[in-house]
Formats: sequence, C-alpha cells, structure tokens
Amino acid sequence: MKPASPLARWLPCLGWAGQYDRRMLGSDAVAAVIVTIMLIPQSLAYAMLAGLPPYIGLYASILPLIAYGLFGTSRTLAVGPVAVISLMTAAAAAKVAAPGSPAYIEAALILAFLSGLMLVAMAVMRLGFLANFLSHSVISGFISASGILIAASQLKHILGIPAGGDTLIEIAGNLLAGIGAVNVPTLVIGVLATLFLFWVRRALKPLLLRVGLGPRLADLIAKAGPVMAVVLSTAVVAGFALDARGVRIVGAIPQGLPPLTVPGFDPELWSALLPAALLLSLVGFVESISVAQTLAAKRRQRIVPDSELMGLGAANLAAAFSGGYPVTGGFARSVVNFDAGAETPLAGAFTALGILLTALLLTPLFHFLPQAVLAATIIVAVLTLVDLKALPRVWRYSRHDFMAMAATMIVVLGVGVEPGIVTGVVLSLALFLWRTSRPHVAIVGLVPGSEHFRNVERHRVLTSESVLSIRVDESLYFANARALEDRIYAELATRPALRHVVLMCPAVNLIDASALESLEAIQHRLKDAGVVFHLSEVKGPVMDALGRSDFLDHLRKGGGQVFLSQFAAIAALDPDLVQGRRPDGSPAPLSEPSIGTAGIA
Amino acid sequence: MKPASPLARWLPCLGWAGQYDRRMLGSDAVAAVIVTIMLIPQSLAYAMLAGLPPYIGLYASILPLIAYGLFGTSRTLAVGPVAVISLMTAAAAAKVAAPGSPAYIEAALILAFLSGLMLVAMAVMRLGFLANFLSHSVISGFISASGILIAASQLKHILGIPAGGDTLIEIAGNLLAGIGAVNVPTLVIGVLATLFLFWVRRALKPLLLRVGLGPRLADLIAKAGPVMAVVLSTAVVAGFALDARGVRIVGAIPQGLPPLTVPGFDPELWSALLPAALLLSLVGFVESISVAQTLAAKRRQRIVPDSELMGLGAANLAAAFSGGYPVTGGFARSVVNFDAGAETPLAGAFTALGILLTALLLTPLFHFLPQAVLAATIIVAVLTLVDLKALPRVWRYSRHDFMAMAATMIVVLGVGVEPGIVTGVVLSLALFLWRTSRPHVAIVGLVPGSEHFRNVERHRVLTSESVLSIRVDESLYFANARALEDRIYAELATRPALRHVVLMCPAVNLIDASALESLEAIQHRLKDAGVVFHLSEVKGPVMDALGRSDFLDHLRKGGGQVFLSQFAAIAALDPDLVQGRRPDGSPAPLSEPSIGTAGIA
Repeated sequence: MKPASPLARWLPCLGWAGQYDRRMLGSDAVAAVIVTIMLIPQSLAYAMLAGLPPYIGLYASILPLIAYGLFGTSRTLAVGPVAVISLMTAAAAAKVAAPGSPAYIEAALILAFLSGLMLVAMAVMRLGFLANFLSHSVISGFISASGILIAASQLKHILGIPAGGDTLIEIAGNLLAGIGAVNVPTLVIGVLATLFLFWVRRALKPLLLRVGLGPRLADLIAKAGPVMAVVLSTAVVAGFALDARGVRIVGAIPQGLPPLTVPGFDPELWSALLPAALLLSLVGFVESISVAQTLAAKRRQRIVPDSELMGLGAANLAAAFSGGYPVTGGFARSVVNFDAGAETPLAGAFTALGILLTALLLTPLFHFLPQAVLAATIIVAVLTLVDLKALPRVWRYSRHDFMAMAATMIVVLGVGVEPGIVTGVVLSLALFLWRTSRPHVAIVGLVPGSEHFRNVERHRVLTSESVLSIRVDESLYFANARALEDRIYAELATRPALRHVVLMCPAVNLIDASALESLEAIQHRLKDAGVVFHLSEVKGPVMDALGRSDFLDHLRKGGGQVFLSQFAAIAALDPDLVQGRRPDGSPAPLSEPSIGTAGIA
Repeated sequence: MKPASPLARWLPCLGWAGQYDRRMLGSDAVAAVIVTIMLIPQSLAYAMLAGLPPYIGLYASILPLIAYGLFGTSRTLAVGPVAVISLMTAAAAAKVAAPGSPAYIEAALILAFLSGLMLVAMAVMRLGFLANFLSHSVISGFISASGILIAASQLKHILGIPAGGDTLIEIAGNLLAGIGAVNVPTLVIGVLATLFLFWVRRALKPLLLRVGLGPRLADLIAKAGPVMAVVLSTAVVAGFALDARGVRIVGAIPQGLPPLTVPGFDPELWSALLPAALLLSLVGFVESISVAQTLAAKRRQRIVPDSELMGLGAANLAAAFSGGYPVTGGFARSVVNFDAGAETPLAGAFTALGILLTALLLTPLFHFLPQAVLAATIIVAVLTLVDLKALPRVWRYSRHDFMAMAATMIVVLGVGVEPGIVTGVVLSLALFLWRTSRPHVAIVGLVPGSEHFRNVERHRVLTSESVLSIRVDESLYFANARALEDRIYAELATRPALRHVVLMCPAVNLIDASALESLEAIQHRLKDAGVVFHLSEVKGPVMDALGRSDFLDHLRKGGGQVFLSQFAAIAALDPDLVQGRRPDGSPAPLSEPSIGTAGIA
C-alpha cells in the first residue's frame, strides 16, 4: 500500500476500490460462499456460548463485517463472533444480569459499544501499543485455558443436563452432580455430531481427494461439514419429534433484518462493564492483528495497527447498533477466507450478505436444530486453540515466561477469565521489572596481548589492583541504578589499593534521572574515599543527555574522564598493565575464571 | 567488613564488637552527647507532627536505636523519629482514629509493628530491591512536597489557631479562616523562635569561630540551638504564665521508663493500615539507606541492604513494643553523628541512654515548653528538605522524570501523601514500560571503505536493495517485540527487490519467549514473502538461550544464518556492495542522512 491521502489513512478501502476488477470479484465471491457456510453454524454456536440467543450471532455477522471492511487494513481478515471473546462476554455480562434475560442481552450490546468506543479512542490516540503488554506467553496461556473452559462448559449441552459454572471445578462438579439426569437422545446426537465433526476436520478432505474430487470441491465439502451436521441433525430431530423427548432445540428465531439497537445509558452499569470491555478490546485486538499480519505478510501487504484498531472499533460499534455483541477477527475463518482466494474486504461484505439472506429467509429452518450440535461445533473448534505443548516448550526456554503462562492458565481455569488475564499481565510486568532491576554487571580485565576486555569470571585476563574496570550490560534507570551502586561500593570495600573505577557503557542506551543521581553519588562517594570515577565507551545519544546535566563537570572536577575505549582508560590509568606488569615490575595477576568461557562476553 | 559467619550476617555488631577500644568509646560518647541534644527537641516535635503526644517521640528514640545497632550495618546511622515518616504516620492514623485519641496512639503503634514485620520479612525474603521501584525523581518530589506540606501544617502552632487539613489547599483555607483568632503571645514566640533557629543554622557557627572558639565547641553550641530555644522559651512561658494567655504548651509528660506495649490484634484495622505500613517501610528504607551509603562510603565501609532492612525492621518492632511510633534513619542527625566522630552503633546506644535519662528525669521541665517552638523546630528542619531547583534541573535532563516528579508533588500537595507516592510510582513505571515498548530500531548501511555499519539517517552509507540491515538497540521482550515486527513488515512492504533481512543484535542482552515468537513469526512471514531472515552479532548468552528453542533450526531450514558480524553478512549476501557496486555494476546508492551525524550510532 502506497502512502495515501489523509482520507485514505482512515478509509483504507479507498486503496483497493479503484483497482477493483471482475477477476477480484470472482475470487471474493467464492471465498464469501465458503466463509458463509462456516459462519452460519459458528455464529449461532458462539452466541449460545456467550449466553445469548443464537440469532444474536447472526446479527453480529452482518454489519460488523462491512464496518471492518471500510476502516480495517487487512484485506482478508474475517470479522465476527469468535470463541474467546464470546466467553469473555459471557463472564462479563453474567456479573450484571441473568443469562438470556433482556438485561443480559443489553449488557452484551453495551460491551460491544464500549469496546468499540475504546478501540476507536485507542486508534485516534495511537494507543495500540497497549496491546504489547499482553505478552505472548500470557495470551497463549489465556487462549489455551479459555479453550479448555469453553469445551468443558459445552459438555452440559452434549449431555442434555443443566450444569453452569464459571470455573473448571464448578463446571466439573455440576456435571458430576447432574450425570444421573443425562438425556439419552441428546447424548447420542451430541456424541455423533462431535465424532462426525472431528472426522470431517481430520479425514474428509483427504478421502474426497482420494476418490477423485477436485481439490477446490473437496475443500468446499469439508468446510461444509458443520452445515451438514446442522442439516442432518435438524432433520432427524424434526422427523422424530425428538424435542418432545427432551432434546433441547434452538427454537423460534425471529425472521428479518437485524434490529436497530441503541445501547441504553446507565452510568453504573457502564462503569461496571468498563474493565471487561477494555480486556475484551485488548484481547480481541491482539488476536485479530496477529492473524491479519500473518496473512498480509504472505502477500507482502501491510497492516497498520492503528487502522486495525479503527476497523475493529467500527465493527464493534456496528454490532452495538444492530443487535449484536462483541466481535473481532477470527483465526480459523480468516485463514479459510485467505485460502479460498479472498482479495479484498468485499469478500467480507459478500459474507455479510450471505448471513443477511440467512437471517431473512432461513431462520425457520433452524427451529429444530439441536443445541447439542452447536455445542459439538464449539468443542471441535476450540480444542484446536488448546496448545498444552507450549508449557514444556516455554519452560525449556524461559522460567519467567513459564510462570506467567502457568499462572494465567491456573487463574483462568480456577477463578475466571478476567482475573486470569489480569494476573498474567501483572505477573509478566512484575517479572520483567524484577529482571531489569538486576542488570548484568561484570568486572572485566584485559585479554593479554590485545586491546579487548572480558569478564574476569569467564576468561583468564589481566586485572589491575589500582583500576577497577566494570561493565554494565543494560540501560541504567531507577530500577537498577541502585544495584550498580551497591555493586561498586561492595567492590570498593574489598579493594584497599583501589584508585580508579572505570564504568564501561557500551550497552547503555539510556541513563535516566535516577541513574544520573546514582552516577553522581558514585562519583561523589568514590571521591570521598580517595578514588577517581571514570566512564568509557559511552554512546553518542547518552553523552548528549549527560551534557545537559552537571555530571560531566563534577566528574572532571574530581579528576575523572570519559574515555573513548576501555583500553585507552587502562593505558592512561595503569600503563604497566598493558605490558602485563604491576607498577612494581612483578607480573600482573591473571583472573581465575569461575564460570567458564562459553559465552563471548 | 570481612565476610563473616552466618551469625555475623544477621548480627553485624559482632563485626566491630571485638575490636572495640577506649578511643572508640570516647568518640562514640562525644557524638552521642551532640546527637542527644539535637534529638530531644526533634523527637518531641516530630511526635507532635505525627499527631501524637510529644513524649511518644522520646519513647521512639530509646529502644529502636539499640535494636538498629544490633542488626543494622551502618556504623553511624542515627535512627529515630523523622519528619516525612511522621507525616505519613499522621496521614495513615488519621484515617482510622481521631488525632490524640487512644485509638490513634494504638494505630501508630500498629503502624510501627506492621512496618517492622514487613521490613524483617523483606530482609528474610531479600525483597530489598522493591525499594528500587521508588525512582529518585519520585522520592525527591515526594520529600520536597512533604516538606512544604509539613511546614504549612505547623503554621497553625506558630499562629496559635486551630487549622487542620490534609492538603495544601485545605491547610491554607483553614489558616485564612482562622487568621482573626491569632494568639499574639504565641505568634511572637513562634516567629522569634523560627528566626532564631534560622539564624543559628546559618550564622552562629561562623560567628563563634570568628570570636575565637574552637571548632568543636562552636559546633556543639550551634547544634544546641534548638535546645537553647526550648530552654529559653520554656522559662519565658513559665515565668510570665503565658499559658494562661493562650499559649499552648506541651503540658504534663509522664515521667519514667517507656511502657511495654503490645499492639492489639484487630484484623480489620490491620488490613486498613497495611498499605500505609508498606509505603512507610519503603520510604523509610530508601531514605535511610541512601544516607547510610553516603556515610559508609566516606570511610570505605560497606552497607548490606538486606541487613539494613533487618536493622530498620528491628527498630520499628522495638518502637511498637515500647510505646513508640514508626522510625527510620534520619538524614540530618546521621550526618551530625558522623561528623561528631561516631565510630560504631554504640554511639546510638549512648544516645538512647541520654534520651532515657531525659524521659526519667527531665520531662517535668518540658511542661511549659510552648508548642510554637516545637513547630519552629520542625519548620526550620523540613525546609531544608525542599529542593524546588530539582524541577528545572530534571526538566532539562529528562521529560519523563520531570513528569513523574511533578505529578508526585502535585498529588502530595493536592490530595495527600499516600496517593502522591502511589501516583509517582505507577506513573514512573508506566513511563518506563512505555519507553521500553518502543526500542530504537535503525536501518544501517555500510560506511564506504570500512567494515562498519551506521544508521542511514545519521550517516552517508552504502545500502543494498536486496539486503536490509536493521539494528535493534534494546533487549527484545514482549513489550517491544511487536514493534520490531511492525517495523520489519513495513520495510518489507516498501521494498519489492528485498531478498534478505539481517537483524543486528549487538545490544540485545535478552530475548524472552514473546520476542522469540516474534522472531519465529518474522522468519516465517518473510519466508512466505520469499525473503530470507538472518541474525548477526548475537551475544553468547542469547545464542545459548536460542539454542534451547527450535528457532535456529527453523532459521537454517529457511536458508537463514547467524553471522558473526554484519560485515560478514553483507559479504556473503551482497558481495558487490562491499565494492560499492550494485549487482548490475552501477554504483550502489548512498543514504541521505536526515538527522545529522552528531551521535556515534
């Protein structure tokens, strides 16, 4: 995408509309048919997962798709109801109203509205970077745990028993308590549908290819698996009147256009839903942008994060004004849309048209659709989100990331989705701050016969008794400045012959005001102890900043210098060491490495 | 201090007790006399500032000093009541009880107890690093604003009117409202005492030296200024019976040993006071350790932060069990103690003895001491804490630090001390996280005729059309990994001829699991776009970590390499550029610097 006019910045659709041709129309239309076939059962199912009447899922799959197409930068992102956002909607709305009640539906609308407003505000204020504070480990743990929680929550529909609950333990307890009341026809339908859908997902396409179908047709048929399950099970339930035998069905769905809805203003309710809406927005944004970027990179297109915020914000506002609930870009449908050849967001508009026609014409056909089949659709879809192998993989790579991931999962499963993600974010920030508060500080010595300095604990290097060379491998700021001070004072206390301390700064990208005070304090206290403080290898921008303070003056008044290199410092302060000697002519001591020389620093 | 036995780790006093001699005894005793003379009026005054009866200040100046001496590592820190901690005690206790009431005194005891427990717990769990998250700018703003607030809060005692208030505006409003009721004798005493104390602080010692007194005696007399004011004003009030004319006096002080007190256990009250106790602990620790380090460095002694926590914790527990209130190491008295020649914590023990004798024998003499003189003592002491010049200095050096400092001051003055420090900490952490979330990323090019690579925006360097050299100047972790991704995808979208991307990592000290996922995503997406991803100049420990993941395998399978240097990368991927040519033989383009070449990177 070329740099464009200010209008095109906020309406990325202007970028492709001018080049649109018949070939693209054909591709978009084919992709739209495939996505529509996937979306019909998914939208009904995810609405049910959110605790809403299934038709709300259809409403959330019409206008939001068009709104995203106008403002979003991804050409192929398929927006609409998704599993994790539906679960989060259920958790938030259940706090303020009884599931299925008008107040609950209103709460879902308000969540979409607030989430839309926040996304638009984040776009305008360029706050998209906030999503970066959801670390990958936290998101991954959150999505896996949510997948498990969602699958568990749907088992009641497969068993045909009432068994609610917000945590895995509650759900399991309620399922066990209700196990005696299992409805056998429901169970048969549910288990068969689940097995069928797993089989379709795993085995149908290869089978069709083997019997000689073209890959395109095989793919279309495989994608239509859930629709087949819906049609077949609806026919069976209707034909044998199984609803009279306790099989719960979708029931009457209002036929027609989505209603125009305006979220009611209730300050107390809004402020109660605000934190949930913020989490919804951030999680939805992270999920959406990662799939959008994956797909865009394949065609060397560009995703503009701020425009994505605007697109998702517009989609959620559209959902709020057309009887929907929170939406975002879904992973599975977007990949299908891309693979099916979608070229522009018009594919999304065509999908919206398909869902609109469904809402207008087909809803009576869903009357006898058993809820167990929708539950099966959800279970099969969400179990692909669960990635438990990430736990050992992350454990091997980083203990901190593992802790954040595991804590997120445990709290999601044991307490709830919102506390889970908040725990993960707070813990990962705390661990990050903790880590940065202890910078790697190395005492270094001269590699004999060279101008290089290396960690005395890793290499056999020459050390001076009068000059301490100390290297800090991190920017200096308030959280770690005092650690450097402590270290230098500790060294000072154990080296009676010390006359100079040289701080090597090749990895220091920033020195904040607290660290500057620490350097002042170090300089001042060393001076009181009769030791001169110097710097070496200071980066240009850091020198510029130091020049705006009095530190360099104080340093120079105390006899200190800023050396261009550590070798220049040693050559000036202890020239004998360069020759491998002590000032008295005896050989300078070599360090005894205690860590080994594996690393290069 | 030499490394010592495990017992000496927790009882640092064992380190000096064995070497104690008569000379040290003499030095410690002299220092103790001077500090005692300072501490008597200060302890009474700070207790009044905390809203407590003045004798509580004496109690807090006996056992805590001895407890610190046993467990702390500073040889010269003078522990006891200090201004900022007294203000924080007042703010916290006033939330749960009426000032001066038994419940209020109990709340102060509980604060000392909880604070002591937390400090000991932090020592045992080695959580001293938590104090690092109070940035210097926040502490400096907090102390300046507290000083202003304290001075303002004492004006009512100088004017002899009741005028409470928690914020500067409240205090000013109450002072203005009560100005008609000024008690003239109080005002005269208060103003004279304030002027006298300022004069003593600024001019007395030089004057005494000029009239021929020895420096030691001159210093002692100058330090005794507040005691002189106390004695003189007490005599005047008693002689002229000014208490009958509305001059408020200290009144009856119980004579005797500090009582044995046990803080009552009330879960609700404890949890209400817990956050305040935590803030008290952290602020007290930061204040104390910075003065302890300053003094220790002058004599090349070592402060062990965890032992300091233990020492302060013990001091606060001692305060809680002997009728005191929260204490910490005070700046002014510690410097006096050091300058007067104190060599070991026995000086503190002698000071404690002096205060004990005062409590036993002298308290009747304080009966007629006017509160206005104590207020004058506080005002003169705290105004030295106010450092408004820090504002422009920090503004010049760093806008972020200025924001944190100014926000802390505004909230302390306008809302209260606790919200002020919390605002400062949260804001400084948020600004730090924000800054680290946008790492410095530079496109670099080859300096003609060299092996060096420099920022294309700062230097005229050779750039390749098929190889993008990009350098990131920060460790990679969740908060900034996506920013790097965005940048690389943006470059990819604008460079149709791109075949290779080389990420230079000389400043990358860490790659966390999120950043690893980002690198995987970059590698994968570049591969989808027909571009090969490489790394260069990766540090040893980072390579070790990458070796524990599958990333290097994926990189190599995609044709990518890890080059030892960026020059090696270019020499392998676009050898013509090394000759200054394009592959077609035309001269390679030189970058047009847009920033200028001031920096070295």
